Amino acid sequence: MLRGEGCPKNVLAIKDALEAVEGRWKLLILFALSNGPRRFKQLAREVNGITDKTLSKELKNLVDNKLISRTVHDEFPPTVEYAITTHGESLDRVIEELHQWGVSHRNEVIGK
Amino acid sequence: MLRGEGCPKNVLAIKDALEAVEGRWKLLILFALSNGPRRFKQLAREVNGITDKTLSKELKNLVDNKLISRTVHDEFPPTVEYAITTHGESLDRVIEELHQWGVSHRNEVIGK
Repeated sequence: MLRGEGCPKNVLAIKDALEAVEGRWKLLILFALSNGPRRFKQLAREVNGITDKTLSKELKNLVDNKLISRTVHDEFPPTVEYAITTHGESLDRVIEELHQWGVSHRNEVIGK
Repeated sequence: MLRGEGCPKNVLAIKDALEAVEGRWKLLILFALSNGPRRFKQLAREVNGITDKTLSKELKNLVDNKLISRTVHDEFPPTVEYAITTHGESLDRVIEELHQWGVSHRNEVIGK
């Protein structure tokens, strides 16, 4: 992949993938939702250190990117539930590769 | 990978991998060097739009992360050459996965 294929369209697709998962919180939210649907307050508890304002912003981004779904349950009072989508789960292999390379990178660079 | 393995150590390794390749320029520099060793001025020409100051900073980061090597040739005048390392080339599979997912992500989200 690296050899000679740095054409703009390839690089654009790679940048899109990086943007979908980069930043401090997206992965942590996806990990939490990979254990099943969650409500806002549950996620706010599970994702350590995230503020409600940031969680709202990150959830909107993940919904816009179709990595998670947002469902309003017509009860009284109405409840909102977030769940990972099939497209979100398709990130599994990318995250696995990132994880494996990250472990070897830590060994290479900081030797632990 | 996603299911239930969001323990801090895993997330840390994933973040290390993302940091090594994220940003606007690192991938473009790695792509240029995957075609063979380059001198600073060659890289400045090949990586469209990058300033010398930014190129210096990004090259230092890539050297510190052992993704590329910096060799000073003892000629007159001395010349400096950058080349991708084996560790740098080990990014190939991650970049391939990011690329494939990025293409499917573009289809899913913007339908092109």
